[in-house]
Amino acid sequence: MTTPTAGARPDEVRRHNRTALLRRLHVDGPSTRASLAAELGLNRSTIKALVDGLAESGVVAERVPAQRSGAGRPSLLVLPQPHAAVVMAIDVRVEQVAMAMVGLGGDILGRDSWNLHHRSRDPGEVITHVADSAKLLADELDVRAVGVGVSVPGVVRRADGLVHEAPNLHWTDVALGQRLSSVLKVPVQVGNDAELGALAEHVRGAARASSDMVYISADVGIGGGVISNGQPLRGTGGYVGELGHMVVRPGGRRCYCGCQGCWETEVGEAALCRALSLPEDSPRGTVVAELRSLAGSPDSVAHRLGEFTEWLAMGLVTVVNMLGPELVVLGDLFTALPESMVEQLRRTVQKRSLVSRAVGGTRIVSSPLGRDAKLIGAAELAFEPVLGEV
Amino acid sequence: MTTPTAGARPDEVRRHNRTALLRRLHVDGPSTRASLAAELGLNRSTIKALVDGLAESGVVAERVPAQRSGAGRPSLLVLPQPHAAVVMAIDVRVEQVAMAMVGLGGDILGRDSWNLHHRSRDPGEVITHVADSAKLLADELDVRAVGVGVSVPGVVRRADGLVHEAPNLHWTDVALGQRLSSVLKVPVQVGNDAELGALAEHVRGAARASSDMVYISADVGIGGGVISNGQPLRGTGGYVGELGHMVVRPGGRRCYCGCQGCWETEVGEAALCRALSLPEDSPRGTVVAELRSLAGSPDSVAHRLGEFTEWLAMGLVTVVNMLGPELVVLGDLFTALPESMVEQLRRTVQKRSLVSRAVGGTRIVSSPLGRDAKLIGAAELAFEPVLGEV
Repeated sequence: MTTPTAGARPDEVRRHNRTALLRRLHVDGPSTRASLAAELGLNRSTIKALVDGLAESGVVAERVPAQRSGAGRPSLLVLPQPHAAVVMAIDVRVEQVAMAMVGLGGDILGRDSWNLHHRSRDPGEVITHVADSAKLLADELDVRAVGVGVSVPGVVRRADGLVHEAPNLHWTDVALGQRLSSVLKVPVQVGNDAELGALAEHVRGAARASSDMVYISADVGIGGGVISNGQPLRGTGGYVGELGHMVVRPGGRRCYCGCQGCWETEVGEAALCRALSLPEDSPRGTVVAELRSLAGSPDSVAHRLGEFTEWLAMGLVTVVNMLGPELVVLGDLFTALPESMVEQLRRTVQKRSLVSRAVGGTRIVSSPLGRDAKLIGAAELAFEPVLGEV
Repeated sequence: MTTPTAGARPDEVRRHNRTALLRRLHVDGPSTRASLAAELGLNRSTIKALVDGLAESGVVAERVPAQRSGAGRPSLLVLPQPHAAVVMAIDVRVEQVAMAMVGLGGDILGRDSWNLHHRSRDPGEVITHVADSAKLLADELDVRAVGVGVSVPGVVRRADGLVHEAPNLHWTDVALGQRLSSVLKVPVQVGNDAELGALAEHVRGAARASSDMVYISADVGIGGGVISNGQPLRGTGGYVGELGHMVVRPGGRRCYCGCQGCWETEVGEAALCRALSLPEDSPRGTVVAELRSLAGSPDSVAHRLGEFTEWLAMGLVTVVNMLGPELVVLGDLFTALPESMVEQLRRTVQKRSLVSRAVGGTRIVSSPLGRDAKLIGAAELAFEPVLGEV
């Protein structure tokens, strides 16, 4: 229960409105003063004062809109200025680290990435490489990041960015947030990869209009990020839940987590390789190519991936029944699944989930952000505290 | 993402503070003005004005505290007056309907209940009986309920109290909220029983200090209510998720929902009866007595209920991994489980759940509110809109 406590003072109100205005421009892009006033429920003079202040400090620019609607003086178009606030996004994956500098408004201003091999996965090595790349990228683009967001495939404590366990990276209790911020000298936010995928889809992807959605992340492991009633769902102490470790197949394959037959064990990348008769450690490109080769033949998909599809559907039914989302976004590797398989998943969920039936059908779609989802989510994580400070 | 919009006006601030004060007194009981000021972050003159106003309209009373601490003039104790706002709580169960009149502060002022048999489960019959009992109870206690909360074991749309599906009652698309409010002439809120159990434990039971908890309801069916970050977790359109319909045992018993081997099918009341070698439709008293008879002999519990315990634990591991609660409260029928079994559940969850290990161990306890949990939750549901209006 939220207990409302005290009232708001005028300077708090002003700051609150300024942050709301900036967030609106950052998320939805350029807008006229008139639309901003209507959407934020503020009067025109308040909007004018806020926009004037932001324009003076170079955070927004104003221009006459190209298309005029109606007669009279046109309402000026307010544009966020990308260089006014730049954050750095880092996506630590099992096989690769990707980085990007992202400006206010969400544009990616520049990128870098490198592959990870067994030895280079050491947290110290990753941090050093990140610091070097950050400097090069900042110099090249002539920007300075005011915040950093990091996506990690593991159990993360949000308060201080402690990576409690990232099993596929072989990381345990890595103080990633603290270590990175002491090297980079800016605030660092660390989040679970699936949670950040969900955030990205909610802010800039398939789930912009959905306040109850689940993002399924499928890299080496399986994870889930949940937006519930418009807010990220987090567990105790900032630990997010781990959808990949629901047991779908009792007595199934042993998982490092202590269970047998976890969803991750049954539908993760290794399981997909087995189903496709590929070696478990096949390169991602090979797996995706094999999936693409099946795209035109639903019968082959049903024949070769029927059991895999069943385990994937079983987990989806439980996810939908437990969390009641209106939308499930299949991310990462699952964006390469043949459409006939996704169609089969939709049918099975509709048939077996009483919650899906109750809400009039849960939509299941492939992530439009694809491989960038976690990077975009990490940038949004970094922007959250920044928008109040610009 | 919540977008803060406009600022607060003085009358809104005052109303906001008044509601916060009333909620504090309603939930935590009598308190001194000094403590109220400290806890709500308001200054003494604001508290004085609010309390004076409430006292004048008879919503609170003030008295000198019995125990004085320190020298000087004692801070007056502010007490909520139960009759100042009374709500009616209704708990529709599969075998019984229970009703209570609950006063401001949470005291149960009076009760009624009756058994349901096959024919009397018809929604129209239930509504008529509720209306008759409500009148008798109100006359007897000389109170008038200003709001009604109803707990139903099914998929409920919160906005209008539509019971989409309450399978064990054989209800489908019953406009319970609308029908009851047109008969009772007061606002009616309808909630899922497990969600209301969670609310009750959070406000007045085992989870008062927990902002991330799961309540497991075990009546004929199994349900789950979730509090996440201090707020009830709800799915799309107000439909809550259905923990009872996660598939724990693929290929297990067929469930009415369209799946096989749902948690409900494997650990619901009928499954417990089977495990205890009792007929599936044994009266609740017989089941509880049989469980109690095992209390002193952990070996018998392990022998007779070992497999049942395993399925119960399997579901709990998934619940903990997906939702990351710090506390799981076992409600209803599960409050009768032998302590040795609960201890076994704790060990298994600790051993197999990586999220439980990450958060330093998820506590698992029996509901202290027992059979009253849903009634108390229904009352709190009814109080939510009322506290701003008293």
